[in-house]
Amino acid sequence: MVVSSENNAPHRVVIIGGGFGGLYTAKTLAKANVKITLIDKRNFHLFQPLLYQVATGTLSPADISSPLRSVLRKSKNTQVLLGEVNDIDPKAQEVILDEKVIPYDTLIVATGANHSYFGKDEWKEYAPGLKTVEDAIEIRRRIFSAFEAAEKESDPEKRRAFLTFVIVGAGPTGVELAGAIAELAYKTLQEDFRNISTSETRILILQGRDRILPYISPDLSQAAAEALESLGVEVHTKARVTDIENNIVTFKEGGEVKEIASKTILWAAGVKASPMGKVLQERTDVECDHAGRVMVEPDLTIKGYKNIFVVGDLANFSHQHGKPLPGVAPVAKQQGEYVAKLIQARAKGRTLPQFDYNDVGSLAMIGQNLAVVDLGLIKLKGFIAWVFWLVIHIYFLIEFDTKVVVVIQWAWNYITRNRRSRLITGREAFVEAQSLQNSSAYQSPEKKQPVKL
Amino acid sequence: MVVSSENNAPHRVVIIGGGFGGLYTAKTLAKANVKITLIDKRNFHLFQPLLYQVATGTLSPADISSPLRSVLRKSKNTQVLLGEVNDIDPKAQEVILDEKVIPYDTLIVATGANHSYFGKDEWKEYAPGLKTVEDAIEIRRRIFSAFEAAEKESDPEKRRAFLTFVIVGAGPTGVELAGAIAELAYKTLQEDFRNISTSETRILILQGRDRILPYISPDLSQAAAEALESLGVEVHTKARVTDIENNIVTFKEGGEVKEIASKTILWAAGVKASPMGKVLQERTDVECDHAGRVMVEPDLTIKGYKNIFVVGDLANFSHQHGKPLPGVAPVAKQQGEYVAKLIQARAKGRTLPQFDYNDVGSLAMIGQNLAVVDLGLIKLKGFIAWVFWLVIHIYFLIEFDTKVVVVIQWAWNYITRNRRSRLITGREAFVEAQSLQNSSAYQSPEKKQPVKL
Repeated sequence: MVVSSENNAPHRVVIIGGGFGGLYTAKTLAKANVKITLIDKRNFHLFQPLLYQVATGTLSPADISSPLRSVLRKSKNTQVLLGEVNDIDPKAQEVILDEKVIPYDTLIVATGANHSYFGKDEWKEYAPGLKTVEDAIEIRRRIFSAFEAAEKESDPEKRRAFLTFVIVGAGPTGVELAGAIAELAYKTLQEDFRNISTSETRILILQGRDRILPYISPDLSQAAAEALESLGVEVHTKARVTDIENNIVTFKEGGEVKEIASKTILWAAGVKASPMGKVLQERTDVECDHAGRVMVEPDLTIKGYKNIFVVGDLANFSHQHGKPLPGVAPVAKQQGEYVAKLIQARAKGRTLPQFDYNDVGSLAMIGQNLAVVDLGLIKLKGFIAWVFWLVIHIYFLIEFDTKVVVVIQWAWNYITRNRRSRLITGREAFVEAQSLQNSSAYQSPEKKQPVKL
Repeated sequence: MVVSSENNAPHRVVIIGGGFGGLYTAKTLAKANVKITLIDKRNFHLFQPLLYQVATGTLSPADISSPLRSVLRKSKNTQVLLGEVNDIDPKAQEVILDEKVIPYDTLIVATGANHSYFGKDEWKEYAPGLKTVEDAIEIRRRIFSAFEAAEKESDPEKRRAFLTFVIVGAGPTGVELAGAIAELAYKTLQEDFRNISTSETRILILQGRDRILPYISPDLSQAAAEALESLGVEVHTKARVTDIENNIVTFKEGGEVKEIASKTILWAAGVKASPMGKVLQERTDVECDHAGRVMVEPDLTIKGYKNIFVVGDLANFSHQHGKPLPGVAPVAKQQGEYVAKLIQARAKGRTLPQFDYNDVGSLAMIGQNLAVVDLGLIKLKGFIAWVFWLVIHIYFLIEFDTKVVVVIQWAWNYITRNRRSRLITGREAFVEAQSLQNSSAYQSPEKKQPVKL
């Protein structure tokens, strides 16, 4: 039984993480008689489903970010705290930060997931993944620097590697990245260079399983693969990456080992739960799965602790279909809302039936006028799916802030096919181009001779 | 006499720098029978007059940046090259980059200016200046991290330092930064925090000379100071900074030495010419002034080299008023256009009268509905000046790309007073807040006791 720490003092709810799970918990509790502390490392909520558009130069980071304080401004019962949680003490009911300790009556852990390189962490440097604003800016820098380096390069072999993009993993992020790079190379940048023809660009997407977008139905998955191919992307299924170096991807496809020289390798394959899962496991003996996700009870609490909830990508909820729910925004959102309602029900001495995910379907953008949408009974592809994709994303964006700007930018890009946000920032671009050109594989080409596909 | 290198081969124009000077040279020559190479370290033109709006969270970097290749896409005679020029050989008529040498018939050097700390380069770390996108993101990070740190701080003395902002220098950038921070603190963020009242924020602007905005008329300068004060900014004139440490600014005002504790110190005071001035001096014996600017001839060439031009902030052009023209966008733009026309005139065996700056006036934004505009005969202040400022900036932005987005964002900010682009990126925010809190001055308060003003 959860009780308030002091008589009549409001129930203290501590939420770790301001992603979809944490933020919807806080928003749903906005009017409740509780005292909420939302802790995040960043001062903004990031709308991750559109992060690939930052990485490919369509949107700016601020377009898909909402300052947490701004989103929760009207929630007078909520305090936002910038900081990183180091530990949890479930006995004392405390969350431990660097400089302070925060007591809770109910704790919600919603710290999400990071990339997983399946134990090959050395690949990370050569094949960055896409989870944060910094990741997106780094990928943007690599993509546009590759074209710049190709423009300067006179050796055709090296130029070819600069104009080859490999995306590992064909979930929504991988597919959307591949489609966006294809549109960049074959449309947007077409007239921008003088020494290269960007239509010579090669884009490969490598998928370990037998089809792309495995969460949608096989026929839509097939339609998506055809749409990608129509844009010029080479789709490789049953292709398992066995090695990644600075500019060589090695993979096994149909028993054959293949190597491809590419200066821009992007990682959209594996995901592992945030380290907070391990902390919870150590402190509560809760079980975690192979990806580090916390096995939650039917009401999203953890075994033995009715006042600790885990929601979103960090949770493994298998009570509905026998297999874990996917790590997507709608799951996190619904779980956050459920927990908020359960906290309110408990305050009235009641409870709620177990969490039940209302599957809203899966969708992926492939390119202009091209998308796939699987709503279970209804399956859409092509233009109508593309419109549906846009409407859904705008709808969710608008829940945070009126993102008129995103709509305007999309309209503008649609008309002009230009991408305004093509900045190479962070490191200066010429340094990057140089470091690419001087990379070891090219200094000793006899040592490392990539086999053409 | 400038001649083409080969018979009938197009005249080779090399432009170093894609700011206002270099870009307008290239744009004006777009249809000319010349072969242009524009070299820049970055892949985008940055609209510097609006950079302060990125630093204070109103706009995103991409909103004020235009990819150089995109701006010059239709200029089929122009090649954009990403790279840094290391040297110039005026005898051989060559520009030397890291990996290649580019021959020219006519050279335009338009590499602009950087900050100057008047020989106190150790101040840079504590008081960043605003010239690049990275500078703006760093300043944005510092401003918003200061409020976050104040929210977490329980010691009132430290909290006060987090809520004190000092801007050194009261040219347009300093004034615009001060006004924007005042609007942030007293309007935008008003309801966002729970432990602090952002209306306790102190904002000081320190100006060495006897008035702010010295390029405009004294009465407008006075009006601007009053407008800043009406927003809550403390304006200090004849205030010379003598020392800057991690969180203490020391300055002399009216013979009195004052110290103020501040965690966010911004530098908008000195400017020095880019190092390319020194390279030119070494190679051509041209004279440079105390700020490193190249003394140019009445036609913007340098002494003894009719085929080397210097334009924009790097040039000291004193043939019109006896004193150098200011380092502002309209001067660079007009100089770029002049050089382009002179190159075309020379191709026909003609020449042009000396460069003559058509002074378009000076203006500065102070805050919502508050600006000053000095057009010589016409002087505006308040709302009408503010509208004028907006129109002028939109007009210039639109020359590069249709920046509908900026107009929309401004309209949105005007209505909601929100700032969408309040991202703390780069380093993670909590790391920053911590490093601020652990700074040396606070660990030994007895050693460093700031005197209150």
